[in-house]
Amino acid sequence: MPLFNEIELRAICLHILEAVGVNSEDAEFVSNSLIEANLMGHDSHGILKLINYVRSMKKGVTRSNVKVKVLRETSSTAVLDGNWGLGQIAAKNAMELAIQKAKVNGIGAVAVAHCNHIGRLGEYSTIAAEKDMIGIILINSAGNNVAPYGGIDPMYGTNPLSIAIPTGLGKPILLDMATSIVAGGKVRIAKTRGEKIPEGWIIDRQGHPSTNPDDLYDDEKCIGALLPFGGYKGSGLGLVLEIIGGVLVGAGCGPKSKGNGPLMIALNIESFMPLNDFKKQVDSFIMTVKNSRKKEGVNEILLAGELEFKTKEKRRKEGIFIEDSVWNQIKEISKGLNIDLEIFLKENKNLLK
Amino acid sequence: MPLFNEIELRAICLHILEAVGVNSEDAEFVSNSLIEANLMGHDSHGILKLINYVRSMKKGVTRSNVKVKVLRETSSTAVLDGNWGLGQIAAKNAMELAIQKAKVNGIGAVAVAHCNHIGRLGEYSTIAAEKDMIGIILINSAGNNVAPYGGIDPMYGTNPLSIAIPTGLGKPILLDMATSIVAGGKVRIAKTRGEKIPEGWIIDRQGHPSTNPDDLYDDEKCIGALLPFGGYKGSGLGLVLEIIGGVLVGAGCGPKSKGNGPLMIALNIESFMPLNDFKKQVDSFIMTVKNSRKKEGVNEILLAGELEFKTKEKRRKEGIFIEDSVWNQIKEISKGLNIDLEIFLKENKNLLK
Repeated sequence: MPLFNEIELRAICLHILEAVGVNSEDAEFVSNSLIEANLMGHDSHGILKLINYVRSMKKGVTRSNVKVKVLRETSSTAVLDGNWGLGQIAAKNAMELAIQKAKVNGIGAVAVAHCNHIGRLGEYSTIAAEKDMIGIILINSAGNNVAPYGGIDPMYGTNPLSIAIPTGLGKPILLDMATSIVAGGKVRIAKTRGEKIPEGWIIDRQGHPSTNPDDLYDDEKCIGALLPFGGYKGSGLGLVLEIIGGVLVGAGCGPKSKGNGPLMIALNIESFMPLNDFKKQVDSFIMTVKNSRKKEGVNEILLAGELEFKTKEKRRKEGIFIEDSVWNQIKEISKGLNIDLEIFLKENKNLLK
Repeated sequence: MPLFNEIELRAICLHILEAVGVNSEDAEFVSNSLIEANLMGHDSHGILKLINYVRSMKKGVTRSNVKVKVLRETSSTAVLDGNWGLGQIAAKNAMELAIQKAKVNGIGAVAVAHCNHIGRLGEYSTIAAEKDMIGIILINSAGNNVAPYGGIDPMYGTNPLSIAIPTGLGKPILLDMATSIVAGGKVRIAKTRGEKIPEGWIIDRQGHPSTNPDDLYDDEKCIGALLPFGGYKGSGLGLVLEIIGGVLVGAGCGPKSKGNGPLMIALNIESFMPLNDFKKQVDSFIMTVKNSRKKEGVNEILLAGELEFKTKEKRRKEGIFIEDSVWNQIKEISKGLNIDLEIFLKENKNLLK
């Protein structure tokens, strides 16, 4: 049962999250967020993550229905306590507070301490772009699986960053990228499928280049290391994100990191220039770049986010492919919650149309 | 006369800038800034730049002794008018204002419109770090010489970014990097020396890879294109910096860009956590990374900024090497200002010791 439509997948998520005790509002936001990741092609941040979340909630490591509290606040900054609830809820709160502060003071920056996995960063930077602000997210991600340039031992997370910029063309410019050469999830997928990975992605535990995904993960444990993207420059970015997320936000650095350490920044365009003028200039530049000459074999110059938006359109029409192994695990966790997904899907067939 | 000590070079800069009509205070700051770039190993941003500055000032394109004015302001943001004076002066003002705002409101972000070349970014992010803040600089640089991923025509500047983080170890973590694979200056240097450049740096005007620096620059004009660092990720970063600097800050995008478009952000650490605690955790993580295992053939894992600080120590002792061609041009512009540099150096021999 590999191909689903988005409505089915969202309903499944919602049903499972509610069954594990999450209130409807939070469950709905997290379900939307996960399936949006699938639609955008970021399967490693899609429904696959639900498996971890449910396990973690059953263990009490991730808590449901907690209140996000303010720990520190100035007129333009805040530190929130995510209270180890679902990271998405804390992250959404943080970006909304940053936007609120930016509306009054031109810029807002909000950190979330005690924060679980927040999912796809683009989710939150886009919230800012939709409010006509530039959204910037700096974060370290627990996992500690990227070697510094010149090193062998994993010291940094895949530490992504995201910047969303509003346009007049309906969709924002949306940069959302790990500072590792690939996300760890891609190596896991190759491992599941028994495939080799391209050279240059990982090194083994002795620091030698490897194309064998088993050299990165032994079960859940990272034994080798991912490489940073772009050599020493990507490694430098990974380092500063590790410190901002790990120390300033408080998620801990390197081997001591736990959860996510997001810093959400909203920059109010209208504090700098008239919004319409901004959008007009951005649109005009986008068109200039897209109409410039292409390399041989390149059909279209894709700007940050475009591939994702195209994937979303495609998957909305054609459905979302879920690996058998993932689907089986989802059925498994559902069973543990007394849910039979086959029956659920049959019963809701009309609802889902 | 290729090897100079820093005091000589600074005195030469100061003398020339004053001769072209810059007031002592500004001339001193710019001289320090340029020679600091030479000391740190960024020769493309060192005394070499003085040649352009003087020519530009004689043409009246760069103006001396202008007032930096505030165009727009909120409690945490501002847009300054650099008034086409020396970019360094406007940039310093902008970071100082951002710091002032961050002191009160946790974060400050200041843009500079009508801004000439500001020199080495690390200069200004370090000002924030010295005030126990995290300094972030986002900028687009006129020049329009980097092709987008998949494209041939130059569309972005080398658009650098800098992040400085204070530590308890005397020197900040200092990321200061272009989003092109190398700075354009490095290709110019190869051209001057008649050397080939490594593969992967540039493409020629038809979009083919080239190792011939003449394929990038025909005199001052960019005819080929530099490539972004790190493939589509570096290209995405280059795009968002082009828009932030070009539209939000106002320097113009791509072919329309003029000068630099810097956005200076200061983040007050004490709004997030106690400063001592921050520094202790950063120092401890730095040591963890530096003590981790190294790749074969690597003596030391160098963190962002370390190579520059080591170069500075070395050049302070051993002197700064200036290419004959650069030195001849500096003598040339000096002559145009009725300065004989050989006599100036002889007369000031004692002063310079």
